[in-house]
Amino acid sequence: MSGYQIRYLESQEREDVDIFNTIKTRRTVRDFKPDPIPKDIVHKLLQTARWSPSSSNTQPWHFVAVQNRETIKKLGEIATQGSFIGNAPLIIVVVMDRAFRPGVDAGRAIQQMELYAWSEGMGTCFVGFREVDQQRQVKELLNIPQEMELITTLPFGYRIGRPKGQGVPRKPMSEIAHSESFGNPYSPD
Amino acid sequence: MSGYQIRYLESQEREDVDIFNTIKTRRTVRDFKPDPIPKDIVHKLLQTARWSPSSSNTQPWHFVAVQNRETIKKLGEIATQGSFIGNAPLIIVVVMDRAFRPGVDAGRAIQQMELYAWSEGMGTCFVGFREVDQQRQVKELLNIPQEMELITTLPFGYRIGRPKGQGVPRKPMSEIAHSESFGNPYSPD
Repeated sequence: MSGYQIRYLESQEREDVDIFNTIKTRRTVRDFKPDPIPKDIVHKLLQTARWSPSSSNTQPWHFVAVQNRETIKKLGEIATQGSFIGNAPLIIVVVMDRAFRPGVDAGRAIQQMELYAWSEGMGTCFVGFREVDQQRQVKELLNIPQEMELITTLPFGYRIGRPKGQGVPRKPMSEIAHSESFGNPYSPD
Repeated sequence: MSGYQIRYLESQEREDVDIFNTIKTRRTVRDFKPDPIPKDIVHKLLQTARWSPSSSNTQPWHFVAVQNRETIKKLGEIATQGSFIGNAPLIIVVVMDRAFRPGVDAGRAIQQMELYAWSEGMGTCFVGFREVDQQRQVKELLNIPQEMELITTLPFGYRIGRPKGQGVPRKPMSEIAHSESFGNPYSPD
């Protein structure tokens, strides 16, 4: 951002619009306000997924936006490893259809949604289904063809208060980043 | 952004800082200025990857930042499907190590880098390696353990001019987004 902008933005507000700081301050969120997500925000969330890049522009994805309380409650019962999704006002189910790189393409769309959601005061937490039987149940509940690949039932809701602390710890940069060649630890200097 | 902020931002500048518009205006970039990427920007790019969420916070990734011209030239020769990477001033190689969800975790980190890069006037284009022999060559060149999973050699560079047009076409929203249940086309109204 230019100095011109910075002068006119309060520091907390600036943090919310600058993309680097959005990425830096984002936290995984499992507790949501019960408030429904306005229609125009749901639409923008789906747009951020739709505009994501994909392998050879195949767009091999489907997004099911669930807001019905009964359906969300049932999804929370199936998701024993992430039952908190049952309290989210919105779940976007991500499904891949004959994708060459289902994980990468889905991951990029998911992250666009997560960052946009964060900038709107919302949060999310990835919930996958490792058990084949759970996947079958989710697909049956939502009428998703069984042959498609269920990636996640991604909950969205407004955050309760500001996140505290530093978030989950990260490995040191020198352990995961390498300079020019693997094994040569990256250093910012 | 609040109305307060919007009043003080010129429309083009606002487009660059607002995360929704960053996502909306982002394009895949294959032509780069030869200008090197400043050290602090490389560092911030790696930070955006490091701060990405991952399955059970396993952080199963490695990022190799390559700026050596000879190495980049060789990567461009190996990447016959994306030889333009040979002209990028920076390549970040993404490698996953015993990841449960290598694609999704990599995709989320990649997208954080891509969006931050875009906000800095840079661009990128996903280049993967479908051929086992190409993967072997990249790993040998960069000393990456052969058992790790090579996801992409992601080029970064400053964009040449403003992108023209609408970008690659997207499927209609009603084709990929569903309301409450698969097969019930989503409509914004």
